[in-house]
Amino acid sequence: MNDLYVANGRVLIDGAFQRADIVVSNGKISRIAEADSFVGTDRMLDAAGKMVLPGFIDIHTHGGAGVDVNNATIEDLEKLGCFFASQGTTSWLASIVTDTEENTLRCINCAIEAAEQGTTGVLGIHLEGPFLSRPYKGAMSGGLLRKADARLLGKYLQAARGYLKYLTVSPEVEGVPELIQGIRGQGIVVALGHSGADYETTMKCIQNGAESATHTFNAMRLPHQHDPGIGGAVLETDVFCEAICDGRHLHPGMIRLLLKTKGFDRVIAVTDSMMAAGMPDGRYKLGANEIEVQGGDAKLVLDGTRAGSTLTAGAALKNLVSFTGKKVEEIIPLFTANPAALLRLSHSKGSISSGMDADLVLVDEALDVVAVIIAGMLKYHREGIPLYC
Amino acid sequence: MNDLYVANGRVLIDGAFQRADIVVSNGKISRIAEADSFVGTDRMLDAAGKMVLPGFIDIHTHGGAGVDVNNATIEDLEKLGCFFASQGTTSWLASIVTDTEENTLRCINCAIEAAEQGTTGVLGIHLEGPFLSRPYKGAMSGGLLRKADARLLGKYLQAARGYLKYLTVSPEVEGVPELIQGIRGQGIVVALGHSGADYETTMKCIQNGAESATHTFNAMRLPHQHDPGIGGAVLETDVFCEAICDGRHLHPGMIRLLLKTKGFDRVIAVTDSMMAAGMPDGRYKLGANEIEVQGGDAKLVLDGTRAGSTLTAGAALKNLVSFTGKKVEEIIPLFTANPAALLRLSHSKGSISSGMDADLVLVDEALDVVAVIIAGMLKYHREGIPLYC
Repeated sequence: MNDLYVANGRVLIDGAFQRADIVVSNGKISRIAEADSFVGTDRMLDAAGKMVLPGFIDIHTHGGAGVDVNNATIEDLEKLGCFFASQGTTSWLASIVTDTEENTLRCINCAIEAAEQGTTGVLGIHLEGPFLSRPYKGAMSGGLLRKADARLLGKYLQAARGYLKYLTVSPEVEGVPELIQGIRGQGIVVALGHSGADYETTMKCIQNGAESATHTFNAMRLPHQHDPGIGGAVLETDVFCEAICDGRHLHPGMIRLLLKTKGFDRVIAVTDSMMAAGMPDGRYKLGANEIEVQGGDAKLVLDGTRAGSTLTAGAALKNLVSFTGKKVEEIIPLFTANPAALLRLSHSKGSISSGMDADLVLVDEALDVVAVIIAGMLKYHREGIPLYC
Repeated sequence: MNDLYVANGRVLIDGAFQRADIVVSNGKISRIAEADSFVGTDRMLDAAGKMVLPGFIDIHTHGGAGVDVNNATIEDLEKLGCFFASQGTTSWLASIVTDTEENTLRCINCAIEAAEQGTTGVLGIHLEGPFLSRPYKGAMSGGLLRKADARLLGKYLQAARGYLKYLTVSPEVEGVPELIQGIRGQGIVVALGHSGADYETTMKCIQNGAESATHTFNAMRLPHQHDPGIGGAVLETDVFCEAICDGRHLHPGMIRLLLKTKGFDRVIAVTDSMMAAGMPDGRYKLGANEIEVQGGDAKLVLDGTRAGSTLTAGAALKNLVSFTGKKVEEIIPLFTANPAALLRLSHSKGSISSGMDADLVLVDEALDVVAVIIAGMLKYHREGIPLYC
């Protein structure tokens, strides 16, 4: 039985919009059909000329809707997934900030249970630390950072049962280049960040298998004429570069520069959001840290260090279109095909074609999210949108 | 009468090497002929399979061969031009470092006389200052720097009789954005440098007509995530970026990054050489400053600030090929077509085709310069190279 028909939309296929109907069966896109093939059909969602995009994939987020990943229950993660869906995010990694071994294991167990229960959009886990550089800790707790420890990582890997997808490490931390080489082929994508590493050490990590840069330019040594450092190395090479596009973490000019240098196929839009995303200003948590959010800007109470964002994927999309002046179809890979490629999910996520997961986002001309489908199920629709499913 | 035949070379035409003979008449390339058309002809230069390149154009050099532009006579400039020719440079701007009004006028008069007498390769004048930022003065004399002064620039322009081709200014210096707008259309190309300008001020100067960046990343505020500054602005936009490719001013990774970001059509290789280029280590001058050169590294005696280079164009070509792993034909535009485009000379210089100035450089497989022709005249040839002209 077909689950759903998404009819009458402008569907983003192979980088261009075209009028088409999408047939969804068993959580997958079973067919792309000519437009208006299914008007009036039962279980039809009338896209009414709106843009139909692949679902957004957020590989770096710590929370939202009042939920902090480091302190969340499975129910909390379900709530968080529903909030993300309302913003266009259909897949995400639960990013665990550096924590005690005990709580990290608790978070891992919680996230994998959520992923296995099919909690809205959870793909797996991103561990941000603990093998990070103290001088570039950002909002991490310095006391919890440590040198590379294969035994500890092995424990986390074992607990995660294949759901540990993404690991942020600092190249200059003792043992990290070797650790990267050691975990090659174990299905974990390694990102470099929170780092003041020099060029040579960073290049060694990239040669050893690191494939991504965590929130590029933030908590990162910037390029210098006599030592490009990690900032220069991740720009020069073909690693993927995360970017927090709230206009606050990165000046719009830096986002344009990043895109010019890396190309639109090597930048990944992340939110790095914390629990205050979608919530009013006030006092929140990020792991063990107290956070004060004012005007949407999240900072450590302790010392004012910026601590994640209150950004959503939908807002980031609007920002990127505004900052670059580019068309939506040029920007969308930053939310879809690029993170899918990094996580080796291009066969199932990140684009719209027959056989792909039916993760779809409908947006209107103002780029507001109007409906979101995850695995063929309607997970969000804005009030007032006519639906027939 | 034909002046010269350059026969049997691998000639760089439209970005690729091809066997061809070049016919030179009245200082111009009059014809590109099939290879071996002129073997045995009188006045034939046998390129013997060597690469034949367009002559190199150095838009930023203060001296070499013991000659300091700020202290040079016409005879000195002739000597300097002969030295440059031996390194592949067939056209150059005499770069005058910030000096007193009196000596700047003396230098201008000397350079225009040299240019009018046809002194080897002198195209005109580059004024580096005096409207430069004190905190980013590099090797400039701080006491001679000043805010934008249209009256003073007018004096220099009048004295230069059209030979003032290139002017380096700092965006943040009072009056500079307006000065740039004011001299639009007067045939002077404006470069931005020696600067800690913020992004907005730099962008204003670019909108007002600035087209180049002086020794990019050196004596320049570097990009920061919250303010791209002048470093980010010149990368993001389409201005040309000078680069000193001695491996000392810029880490090779920074050169690769610059090329990746800007493209091979927007970077210009400059030497920024001072009088010690081609000379042994020792004590030299750069304008009014005492310079100590050790291991080829030129620094102010006063405080150790790096003060120009001892680089030559030929050495820069080898460095660039080595740093990037690219083919010679991909690198050559940095020395030829790009500076020609910036100086509006593409109709006569920077490439090899019929009607262009006969400025040619022959290099062997090791990229050593073996012969140099300026305006159809053989100005340099390495001993032991068979010549029949």
